[in-house]
Amino acid sequence: MKPTITAFERSPDCGRGLARDMRVRWALEEVGQPYDVRLVSFSGMKEPPHLARNPFGQIPTYEENGLVLFESGAIVLHIANHHSGLLPDDADARMRAIAWMLAAVATLDPPIMDRSLCALFERDQPWHAQRLATLDTQVRKRLGELSRHLGDAEWLEGAFSAGDLMTVHVLLRLRGSGLLDEVPNLATYVARGEARPAYQRAFEAQRAVFAASSPQGGTAEGDSATTIA
Amino acid sequence: MKPTITAFERSPDCGRGLARDMRVRWALEEVGQPYDVRLVSFSGMKEPPHLARNPFGQIPTYEENGLVLFESGAIVLHIANHHSGLLPDDADARMRAIAWMLAAVATLDPPIMDRSLCALFERDQPWHAQRLATLDTQVRKRLGELSRHLGDAEWLEGAFSAGDLMTVHVLLRLRGSGLLDEVPNLATYVARGEARPAYQRAFEAQRAVFAASSPQGGTAEGDSATTIA
Repeated sequence: MKPTITAFERSPDCGRGLARDMRVRWALEEVGQPYDVRLVSFSGMKEPPHLARNPFGQIPTYEENGLVLFESGAIVLHIANHHSGLLPDDADARMRAIAWMLAAVATLDPPIMDRSLCALFERDQPWHAQRLATLDTQVRKRLGELSRHLGDAEWLEGAFSAGDLMTVHVLLRLRGSGLLDEVPNLATYVARGEARPAYQRAFEAQRAVFAASSPQGGTAEGDSATTIA
Repeated sequence: MKPTITAFERSPDCGRGLARDMRVRWALEEVGQPYDVRLVSFSGMKEPPHLARNPFGQIPTYEENGLVLFESGAIVLHIANHHSGLLPDDADARMRAIAWMLAAVATLDPPIMDRSLCALFERDQPWHAQRLATLDTQVRKRLGELSRHLGDAEWLEGAFSAGDLMTVHVLLRLRGSGLLDEVPNLATYVARGEARPAYQRAFEAQRAVFAASSPQGGTAEGDSATTIA
């Protein structure tokens, strides 16, 4: 039986691939696992049927033969545990890759998400300029540390892994901020992730959902206040 | 060979158990695994030997027979995978517990950490009250969702798991904010975690480190500006 994931009925990022179902779609594409998608509206996400899937009312979720999962990191780990191609076979290398998955969601994502939310939604707040500068500094610090670890390598720990998948997706939110372009090896790293055929298939799949939901046939509306997911 | 973890030489929370080595200590105590501790100073955390352990220059790290791990969530998962007592044997129940570990670090921790940092370090900003109120609302939303899921249960998914361990530790940072006390079933849940003998042993171990480092013999200095870890 194919697993079923949930995704935004109408993604607030206008199909730019920033919503977290993208991580799960990408992982499923990497391992060649077909899947179904249940689209949920913003109001539907806060109703009992979806809260039973995710107590925090977020997407993505994952359902398969009675198992119900939430948290993109946990879902990607589940997929990686049941298919080859996303985590090394060697036990120690496998844990290192999982550590990078955790670093992506717990160490890199929070300042990047804060920075994005501040840039988009706090423009009229008295603290906007000062706080955005502080957050830019925090993000630059993390990018510098990540860049130093990556060096000239293609991926974080040798071969491509779920750790890279999660990290690349977290970094993609910086597109348009200019911060990623300041760090050439990270900009190349992200581009390397995006160039993977599995990423491309996942991206087109989520984009098609937005296109179908949009009166303009999916033309991104150019309103940066909506480019958050 | 005993594993070695890293912890603050002098924890900025004055031994109140908020630093993230507490999660690893607690997990090791739950499974009865002795461990060694390497203390690192704030400057040492940014130097090459520690950056080789954690590219982001943070504690805790974990070293065991050539394996070097970072990210408290990954370390606790590694411990849980190699000992019984922290994750269910059933595969689906195990993934559910892991999903809660991810929720703790990726969904609950970021707003709680933001709120804590704002309360401590932005007190002199003219917009402090307004921003703190916004963050309180975000934290209350997550607490309400978590409370609804927990209901009258003792633990998040039946038996105590690493998901509870991580969640309780994230919630402990709210102590003193009053926010946790607004949600009785969560306050009880956290107290239930703290009452576990393994938690108590871990707490005393980290507290002893601070006591040994402090000229006052470990008396908490009462300066809330330093109670962050």
